[in-house]
Amino acid sequence: MNDEYYMKMALREAQKAYDIGEVPVGAIVVWNDKVLARGHNQVELLKDATAHAEMIALTAAFSELGSKYLPEGTLYVTVEPCLMCCGALHWSKIGRIVYGARDDKNGYRRYVKENGDHSPMHVFHPKTKLNFGILAEECSQLMKDFFRERR
Amino acid sequence: MNDEYYMKMALREAQKAYDIGEVPVGAIVVWNDKVLARGHNQVELLKDATAHAEMIALTAAFSELGSKYLPEGTLYVTVEPCLMCCGALHWSKIGRIVYGARDDKNGYRRYVKENGDHSPMHVFHPKTKLNFGILAEECSQLMKDFFRERR
Repeated sequence: MNDEYYMKMALREAQKAYDIGEVPVGAIVVWNDKVLARGHNQVELLKDATAHAEMIALTAAFSELGSKYLPEGTLYVTVEPCLMCCGALHWSKIGRIVYGARDDKNGYRRYVKENGDHSPMHVFHPKTKLNFGILAEECSQLMKDFFRERR
Repeated sequence: MNDEYYMKMALREAQKAYDIGEVPVGAIVVWNDKVLARGHNQVELLKDATAHAEMIALTAAFSELGSKYLPEGTLYVTVEPCLMCCGALHWSKIGRIVYGARDDKNGYRRYVKENGDHSPMHVFHPKTKLNFGILAEECSQLMKDFFRERR
């Protein structure tokens, strides 16, 4: 399956968050072309500031595999990871990260050091590949709708 | 009670990690001079790369208070937080962070942007106070002992 297929699945997770009044972010961990774990933001439900979609999906993936590393895994997430999730992805040694929409306010790129060309420093495992912009419009629109309703 | 008192308590948590073969880091969350939550590193035990002492202590504190914010709380941790834990502390809006030993390899200061004077950018909540170096020698020695044994 291709990246759009899995990003659509992550979007369905984000919609679940939206439907219960959570900031709509969803994540999927894929391993050998199989969905290993899912997660959607549950910060309000759990009253836990660390219950981001990525953290939930990663912890579920570790548990499913019985391993603290995910070198063959790909994490799809609808919105650019924050600093915490970026750190968690670093420790997981995940094979690939694919995110949809950029997040200039809370995304990790705002905080991590830059290279000479002002690109963010690669803080993930050296072997981790990174892609972004997949279904960015849809991922971003869900966030915009959410915050517009709450204004 | 003073910072040394609580850092000794965090060191006892770190010793628990040491005793079960985990990288020896311990954390305590204090609220109004009462210990609200404790945590020690359990990455190997849980096979979960996110099970750092700070994450466990924060999640326990959120659960204990039924709140996703800890503005009156202080987190004591024996070693400088990593990028993930730094991000989690940001979201928690914790009142104060006190760490013992610096961690030049995995500590957040290695990755976060710097100010003009090369000090790390303040990535925590604007009201979060930061102190470090409390019982640094003891906190660092436990780490050194752990890694020496494993070489």
